[in-house]
Amino acid sequence: MQALQYFRPSLYIASFFALHVAVAMLIPAFVDIADGNEDWMVFMGSSIGVFAVSLLGIVSMRQPLPKFSPRFGFLLTTLLWLVTAIVGAIPFWLSPYGISPAEGFFESMSGLTTTGSTVLTGLDTLPRGILIWRSMLQWLGGIGIVAIGLFLFPFLRIGGMQFFRTESSDRSDKAVPRMVNLTAALMAFYVVLTAACALAYAALGMDLFDAINHAMTTVATGGYSTHDASFGYYGENLGLIWTSTIFMLAGALPFVLYVEFVLRGRLSLFRDVQVRVYVTAIVLVSLMLGVWVHLNSSLDIVQSLSRSTFNVVSIITTTGFASEDYSLWGTFAVGLFFVLTFIGGCSGSTAGGIKIYRLVIIWLAFRRALARLVYPNAVIPLRYGERHIDQDVFESVVTFLVAYVGIFAVMTLVLCGLGIDFLTALTGVVTALSNVGPGLGNVIGPAGNFEPLGETATWILAILMLIGRLEIMTAVVLLSPAFWRD
Amino acid sequence: MQALQYFRPSLYIASFFALHVAVAMLIPAFVDIADGNEDWMVFMGSSIGVFAVSLLGIVSMRQPLPKFSPRFGFLLTTLLWLVTAIVGAIPFWLSPYGISPAEGFFESMSGLTTTGSTVLTGLDTLPRGILIWRSMLQWLGGIGIVAIGLFLFPFLRIGGMQFFRTESSDRSDKAVPRMVNLTAALMAFYVVLTAACALAYAALGMDLFDAINHAMTTVATGGYSTHDASFGYYGENLGLIWTSTIFMLAGALPFVLYVEFVLRGRLSLFRDVQVRVYVTAIVLVSLMLGVWVHLNSSLDIVQSLSRSTFNVVSIITTTGFASEDYSLWGTFAVGLFFVLTFIGGCSGSTAGGIKIYRLVIIWLAFRRALARLVYPNAVIPLRYGERHIDQDVFESVVTFLVAYVGIFAVMTLVLCGLGIDFLTALTGVVTALSNVGPGLGNVIGPAGNFEPLGETATWILAILMLIGRLEIMTAVVLLSPAFWRD
Repeated sequence: MQALQYFRPSLYIASFFALHVAVAMLIPAFVDIADGNEDWMVFMGSSIGVFAVSLLGIVSMRQPLPKFSPRFGFLLTTLLWLVTAIVGAIPFWLSPYGISPAEGFFESMSGLTTTGSTVLTGLDTLPRGILIWRSMLQWLGGIGIVAIGLFLFPFLRIGGMQFFRTESSDRSDKAVPRMVNLTAALMAFYVVLTAACALAYAALGMDLFDAINHAMTTVATGGYSTHDASFGYYGENLGLIWTSTIFMLAGALPFVLYVEFVLRGRLSLFRDVQVRVYVTAIVLVSLMLGVWVHLNSSLDIVQSLSRSTFNVVSIITTTGFASEDYSLWGTFAVGLFFVLTFIGGCSGSTAGGIKIYRLVIIWLAFRRALARLVYPNAVIPLRYGERHIDQDVFESVVTFLVAYVGIFAVMTLVLCGLGIDFLTALTGVVTALSNVGPGLGNVIGPAGNFEPLGETATWILAILMLIGRLEIMTAVVLLSPAFWRD
Repeated sequence: MQALQYFRPSLYIASFFALHVAVAMLIPAFVDIADGNEDWMVFMGSSIGVFAVSLLGIVSMRQPLPKFSPRFGFLLTTLLWLVTAIVGAIPFWLSPYGISPAEGFFESMSGLTTTGSTVLTGLDTLPRGILIWRSMLQWLGGIGIVAIGLFLFPFLRIGGMQFFRTESSDRSDKAVPRMVNLTAALMAFYVVLTAACALAYAALGMDLFDAINHAMTTVATGGYSTHDASFGYYGENLGLIWTSTIFMLAGALPFVLYVEFVLRGRLSLFRDVQVRVYVTAIVLVSLMLGVWVHLNSSLDIVQSLSRSTFNVVSIITTTGFASEDYSLWGTFAVGLFFVLTFIGGCSGSTAGGIKIYRLVIIWLAFRRALARLVYPNAVIPLRYGERHIDQDVFESVVTFLVAYVGIFAVMTLVLCGLGIDFLTALTGVVTALSNVGPGLGNVIGPAGNFEPLGETATWILAILMLIGRLEIMTAVVLLSPAFWRD
């Protein structure tokens, strides 16, 4: 089978990534050493082991890389993410906190995919090494997905991401140096954004460790916290709430537009269709919910609007921080947060979900279809901002949505079949597939935790996070006979 | 505005329909007279009043009919259904059972759209006139939608129904006589099917009145019963359960194929893609649920399979009879019935929902898209049975699905905003939009009733039934600015 030939080079590249992850493990090791916590041995041991195996992998898998093809791209992306998640899980497995194989994989995958669902409780009492490891997984996963969304997905033509090809890439000889420049600029910007967020958090009252951790998981729209209560730990601190809101939103906007602004002074960020629609929608929805919460609770209007905006942004950007159990805000809030779990952020950001540009394209196509029902012979082009939407892009978006809804329905059924209640199954699948974090209900709601779901469901949800993170189709295509046929 | 000119002719035709409904009201009047129940005055009065107003309408609106255009088609279909539902509600409004305006409209619309959700309790104690009126609304609504699905929807190009245009219609001079023949054959077949169902019910133990009522609501895939307990009233009678299963299924298959079989001996029913996929899916799902119920309850395998099949068929054909509270069968059953609520029946049947041919077309397009991801340059035609699926049909199906999901999301939110709990709102919207009947949860579940939802939600759900019954787009296009613009 032709597809099998891509395993070796994919694992070769994955070994390179694992080597870097091994080095990254030294950071939690040093944190634990500084704290005098014996956990440092877990991280040091993991680091050395992974380093050795990665070196072995690099040496043994070495061969000339094959020419780029869609099949190579799909297999490489999936294996890269899967291997990194497994490597990231090793410290959880080796740690002395009774984390099962499924739980360790879930926690690592939830980190790397910037989902933020957790099976751990008692975060406040865990050593700082393991806490910063969770945050680091999210931070690395965040920049990883931005890079892949920029350089790989457009060429794999999945989910309509080919629409963004010409904006951020070309096929000339200058492509590779340009890619290197762009990557460097992206990373630099990511670091600066994270540092700015950490400084703001620290200035507004977080201790330094918390500030760094939450900054990493904020700009990655990940949502891991160092406290079981998540942002609820900081209770009434509206400064922190609003700072977090702004940086979560920053993480969910198209990163390439920041770079264009920084490198070339282009203000395309403010003219971008996605950004405009997204920010407008967030403002309107937050206002609506804020007024509703104010009218239906004892919170004053400032508190209502602040908390509503924070939690709306947290869910729609697929971060998943919670300032409180918003499911207690009543039926409207519950329905709203359910719908928001699907939406997601912009293309080329750290956010997951269906994503704004897909919703915009579908809306434009729907409006055209309506007009055509009345005027059957009218020729109406599909325009997105100033650009024409190809049929190919439209069908690709439809394919993504069909896969999303299909997986949603089937996996909800499977979780129900495992004895999980309907609401938990329904919202557990969405929150995993959209890389959000919390679901609804007593178990996995904003005040809950994924630990009670059992081994099988934990494996399944972790895989759903991976599928969601890779824009669904990357993973789904691997399951199609066409992929393996010659 | 050009669209306004179509109001008069639409109301003219609606008046003709109302005239027939007025005559139909004499049947419950006679039933009540025979029973010596004073309700006969309600029906007699309604009949005379509607007859008079209809005559007035026919005389005052009389004018040459405009040439057929999509706009005329959309307005006519919607007004026809709306006016008939309002006329059908009059006996409920005038009856002495405390039925509010919203409730009467809901009950009539739920009948006419063959949904089967009810706001009435104590059915077992209501006079037989009002009971048979409910059944008659469903029966008339059933044949009405088959006729419109055959003669109107394909020309309105909604939801991909243009795909069935050539099968059942042509544009030659013979079109009108052929249409008249086909209509007569359809109606005859519908009457025969209903009579066969009633005879079978009576032979297996129903009294004659129940047999006639349930036969009318079975072949119409409506689901109104003369008992609060629905089919649960007949408890352990597996003969009735299986008879009902067969006739519900018969109501959800393409009626034109029956007629082709009867008139021309063509066995196309058994070769039809929809029918094959549908029956296979029902058998597999029923088996799966039956085994699951058997393993998770004290029911023996025959009882498990019989009850599972009955309730699966009841929901998937959008009938909505319940033999018991299947939501007590556990989490898997709950999830399964939720998913089944979306599916629906075949094109040109009395069933609602998304419908099998749309799911088949989407699945075929999805498979093609997967293959194209691996082989970007492959040219792969979309084939449905032996026919090619046009781009126009595919986009039309996508438009339907987008509208379905969009309305589902927005209206769930709206119902949540009215203070209705999430599960009730979520499943109430689907069950209305798919014209099924029961939802999930304590309120509107298979053992429940729509009465507690309140006036606003009752109006909304009735309108959603109408939108669902008219294949979504017929009603939605009326809300688009393009429809009213010149």
